Amino acid sequence: MKTIRLSIIGFGAVGQGVARTILSKKEILHKQGIDLRVIGISDSKGSEINVDGIDLKSALARKKQKGTIAKGNEGALDIIRDVEHEIVVEATPTNIKDGEPGLSNMLGAFDSGKHVITSNKGPLALYFSQLKESAEDNGVIFRYEATVGGAVPIFNLIHESLAGNRVMGIEGILNGTTNYILTRMAEERLTYELALKEAQELGIAETDPTYDVEGIDSACKLVILANSVFGQAATYRDVEVTGITKITPEALELASKNNYVVKLICEAGNGTLTVAPRLVPKKHPLAVGGTLNVASILTDLAGRITISGKGAGSIETASSILSDILYIVRNS
Amino acid sequence: MKTIRLSIIGFGAVGQGVARTILSKKEILHKQGIDLRVIGISDSKGSEINVDGIDLKSALARKKQKGTIAKGNEGALDIIRDVEHEIVVEATPTNIKDGEPGLSNMLGAFDSGKHVITSNKGPLALYFSQLKESAEDNGVIFRYEATVGGAVPIFNLIHESLAGNRVMGIEGILNGTTNYILTRMAEERLTYELALKEAQELGIAETDPTYDVEGIDSACKLVILANSVFGQAATYRDVEVTGITKITPEALELASKNNYVVKLICEAGNGTLTVAPRLVPKKHPLAVGGTLNVASILTDLAGRITISGKGAGSIETASSILSDILYIVRNS
Repeated sequence: MKTIRLSIIGFGAVGQGVARTILSKKEILHKQGIDLRVIGISDSKGSEINVDGIDLKSALARKKQKGTIAKGNEGALDIIRDVEHEIVVEATPTNIKDGEPGLSNMLGAFDSGKHVITSNKGPLALYFSQLKESAEDNGVIFRYEATVGGAVPIFNLIHESLAGNRVMGIEGILNGTTNYILTRMAEERLTYELALKEAQELGIAETDPTYDVEGIDSACKLVILANSVFGQAATYRDVEVTGITKITPEALELASKNNYVVKLICEAGNGTLTVAPRLVPKKHPLAVGGTLNVASILTDLAGRITISGKGAGSIETASSILSDILYIVRNS
Repeated sequence: MKTIRLSIIGFGAVGQGVARTILSKKEILHKQGIDLRVIGISDSKGSEINVDGIDLKSALARKKQKGTIAKGNEGALDIIRDVEHEIVVEATPTNIKDGEPGLSNMLGAFDSGKHVITSNKGPLALYFSQLKESAEDNGVIFRYEATVGGAVPIFNLIHESLAGNRVMGIEGILNGTTNYILTRMAEERLTYELALKEAQELGIAETDPTYDVEGIDSACKLVILANSVFGQAATYRDVEVTGITKITPEALELASKNNYVVKLICEAGNGTLTVAPRLVPKKHPLAVGGTLNVASILTDLAGRITISGKGAGSIETASSILSDILYIVRNS
């Protein structure tokens, strides 16, 4: 039995999804000779630490009941630095102003010799190359499948499954909220405002939808993808971004009559980074509807490979984090 | 520098594609510390052996000029058994009667302690569990990404990228020829016979199209997928198969009016294995056109993940074989 000790830093939807997933997969992982133990969990109010492994069921129940995991006052960095474990799962909320507290958590983890898995886009959209360098300097693994495409394993597909291929370009829809709004506008001839309202009522769009509808969330994901695949050192501010707020039902109808749909497309390749509404032929692999995410990878050998799936959701994001955990189990 | 010695058994379109790909990737692989050397190539007429590494450029030129690689009389099994190397790339033509000569080549390779990578569906559609067992007994790796979906890395996606997920079902279009015929019938209101003729003129369908249009090629691929993913021990004869020869333009038109397309869909899950024409909503991720292949994986955590790409082609197939080679380099 290989024992791997984890901390979960940030215990919102993603962190709780990870805990639930580790719980539900306990037996099957045991059968594969893997014993995952969560030795520390922290949220914004405090933390729980147990070097023998936290009882995840009661931790989840306590979080639900009291709104916090807090049993003690240790902060995230106390757990990351001072408790012995192998993997830090960094799942604090995305902050694209300065990347904190994720940035300090990740750098602290690297410095204390721990592998990092994250769903937090902020630090990677701002300081990707610094983070990668710090991981390399400390001889640890840095994985971030959950930052882009939710459940869709884009990084793994490119780096492992398509190994040997040169990637020439990437196109994709990396934001489910805008895809939902555009899909509903096209299907029902809704105005942008009405479709947004519907998305907000369904919990697909946030009360302040700016990051999504102005294309900033897409830009963050695109820049992480480009940095990882093309070895760029860009930040999300280097992306040329146009949002979807000015698209009219009339424009979508005209597109539809000519067998096109309008999608908020992210594009990387030849050094350019663009997020903008584009006409996509209805039969094109990128023309996926609803809240789906999709990425199309242009390669020298395999040609165009397109992958789609759910771009958000607590368990879907945990799926990507679990695959990263298992990657580290196999490769460390 | 890690030196990996390979043999290429079978030097048709796939074998030559592998040689061309190894040639074109030589420098970039060197930079990654990998030195791939082909020490033996065989075709139906003979072979070339060079323990220091065959000059692939002149081997390809000779094959083109003379129609054979033959310099010596050694057969495939002589190379496989008697020449020291690590990986056998088995690329002889698919034979679904008895799986030969691929079956003996693969078993011979396992018995002599060599890893096997193959594009040959025959042996796997008939004797999957025996082959897997033989590889395990001999402590070697058995990879077959190129047998299903051409350039689409289906096995790698499921086993590596979606690690931790339980696969509940698989649906897909695994034959490009029938997809082309159905797409053209729908687009141009062609009869089956006319669309087939067009596909034959373009080299997409073979002179005897039986295996493709009767769904047998799809059944072989489906059974390999099911055996690999669900640990079944089925053969292609266990698949319930209906081909596309009885589909009329009228049926396609009626489907289209209701926003459906007709596709030859492979389905595995709950122990059933089916290949049959199915109605697919035009907006469904499986509704890809032309010669594309697509697979939709239903999982417990990630939900539905769909991947599409080119299902055939010499370099596309070589892409899958190269990713298998690099997997073995990383894991052996």
